[in-house]
Amino acid sequence: VPGQPFTWTIRVYYEDTDTGGIVYYANYLKFFERARTEWLRTAGFGQRAMLQDLGLQFVVAGIECDFRRPARLDDLIEIDVRIARAGRVSFEFVQTARCGDEVVATARVRVGCIDNERLEPAAVPPAMLAALKSLPIAAEPKNQST
Amino acid sequence: VPGQPFTWTIRVYYEDTDTGGIVYYANYLKFFERARTEWLRTAGFGQRAMLQDLGLQFVVAGIECDFRRPARLDDLIEIDVRIARAGRVSFEFVQTARCGDEVVATARVRVGCIDNERLEPAAVPPAMLAALKSLPIAAEPKNQST
Amino acid sequence: VPGQPFTWTIRVYYEDTDTGGIVYYANYLKFFERARTEWLRTAGFGQRAMLQDLGLQFVVAGIECDFRRPARLDDLIEIDVRIARAGRVSFEFVQTARCGDEVVATARVRVGCIDNERLEPAAVPPAMLAALKSLPIAAEPKNQST
Amino acid sequence: VPGQPFTWTIRVYYEDTDTGGIVYYANYLKFFERARTEWLRTAGFGQRAMLQDLGLQFVVAGIECDFRRPARLDDLIEIDVRIARAGRVSFEFVQTARCGDEVVATARVRVGCIDNERLEPAAVPPAMLAALKSLPIAAEPKNQST
Repeated sequence: VPGQPFTWTIRVYYEDTDTGGIVYYANYLKFFERARTEWLRTAGFGQRAMLQDLGLQFVVAGIECDFRRPARLDDLIEIDVRIARAGRVSFEFVQTARCGDEVVATARVRVGCIDNERLEPAAVPPAMLAALKSLPIAAEPKNQST
Repeated sequence: VPGQPFTWTIRVYYEDTDTGGIVYYANYLKFFERARTEWLRTAGFGQRAMLQDLGLQFVVAGIECDFRRPARLDDLIEIDVRIARAGRVSFEFVQTARCGDEVVATARVRVGCIDNERLEPAAVPPAMLAALKSLPIAAEPKNQST
Repeated sequence: VPGQPFTWTIRVYYEDTDTGGIVYYANYLKFFERARTEWLRTAGFGQRAMLQDLGLQFVVAGIECDFRRPARLDDLIEIDVRIARAGRVSFEFVQTARCGDEVVATARVRVGCIDNERLEPAAVPPAMLAALKSLPIAAEPKNQST
Repeated sequence: VPGQPFTWTIRVYYEDTDTGGIVYYANYLKFFERARTEWLRTAGFGQRAMLQDLGLQFVVAGIECDFRRPARLDDLIEIDVRIARAGRVSFEFVQTARCGDEVVATARVRVGCIDNERLEPAAVPPAMLAALKSLPIAAEPKNQST
């Protein structure tokens, strides 16, 4: 749906929880990444092909996460993907994880594109940059994300 | 489909791979469990409800896995769930992970039902035992699983 | 050593890496936590005892991480633990992960103390608060951490 | 100590547990591997060097695990490494995980040596094969391991 953020739904399994009875917080980084990966796939880009054909790889350069409420075993978590900035060699996603009507976690994720051989910054392929710019724009100003 | 094993499809993400370029073998145990969990859910049983309402929990008592071929980033892995034995307090699944036409891994998993308070074996609820017995029967004799 | 930050050394295993050949970024959150846990243990506090005896649990409320350089299989990563703020119900750590002389990642971690029954903020036990205040103070001003 | 199995001690962190309050069973595969890796390192062999210098990699071909008793947050788990078979291109470890005097899990692990380019079985380097043969021999006959 144009104007709507891409969303991806994740089920919470035993593997995702900890002895506190809730989703272990580091696992939200995996959930956020799964949603970005599936958005990229929907937009026509697979990361294995990108690596093999173009020698390019995305790396996470930084992340800010707030963990607001606990999620539990068997919960369904809906993750969205919006864009805050799309530059020539890097970009920034803003994402929210919801369980029903409640926000359980939010993230701001800086991603860089690198040449896999030289391990140096490389230009994001033009078609991908266009796709990134078509994502809904994150409304929150940066200084409220934490 | 009656007579057909339940199957669940899993996408391979970065989080699942290791520096050898393939799915890290311990992660297949998570994949096999996701398929068992989703079969159980399809059959009408959620493990969180089971724990809260009945005080019962399933624990894996033993596992035999063969890792036959590597799977890689972006692969789709199809996991099936069949039954080898359904007893009063424990049961045994036989599962296969396929990537396209190739078997990538197989597992035989022994699961016990325990009372969550006393941490002692407990009877599988009758409706669940009936569901387990409705699963396709694993064809392989036990002594070929390894 | 008084005035020196507590450090904890972590070896990189296959389980920590991904198909890009480097440590998967979400795993740094685990490494940072292991160092905080071991500092807490050295200071005389175990989290299982804290949960069982006092009904208190620490939860991570937010995290900011920068991933600066890749670490690889077999690398030794040294993690330090410093304090940025020690309040009545929450506190904030600043941590650095080094591989040899190079900084591979940094983190600012907000941790809250909660009552495990009511899942509401609870006062950090006085002895633990004193221990937190004895940690070396993080030099970086907050607005440079990202 | 000659004749004594190599042992490696692992601390249980939040990351290792699940909502059942115990160590998530798939994580024992990581613990067993850490002990094998550290034994290999003690014997003078690093896996990254092996990959870079010799183009050789070890892959787990199969595993049998029994999970006998639960381990919990903050527990110390001692893992040993013994050998059941050391062949030209593959070998088999037998390992036990103990918490205090209690056996919490056992494993039989089949490992193959492969050429990283051709992804085909390759001969274990002679010095490493000699080291493998110097490990204490697993007493249990194979057919009792499950």
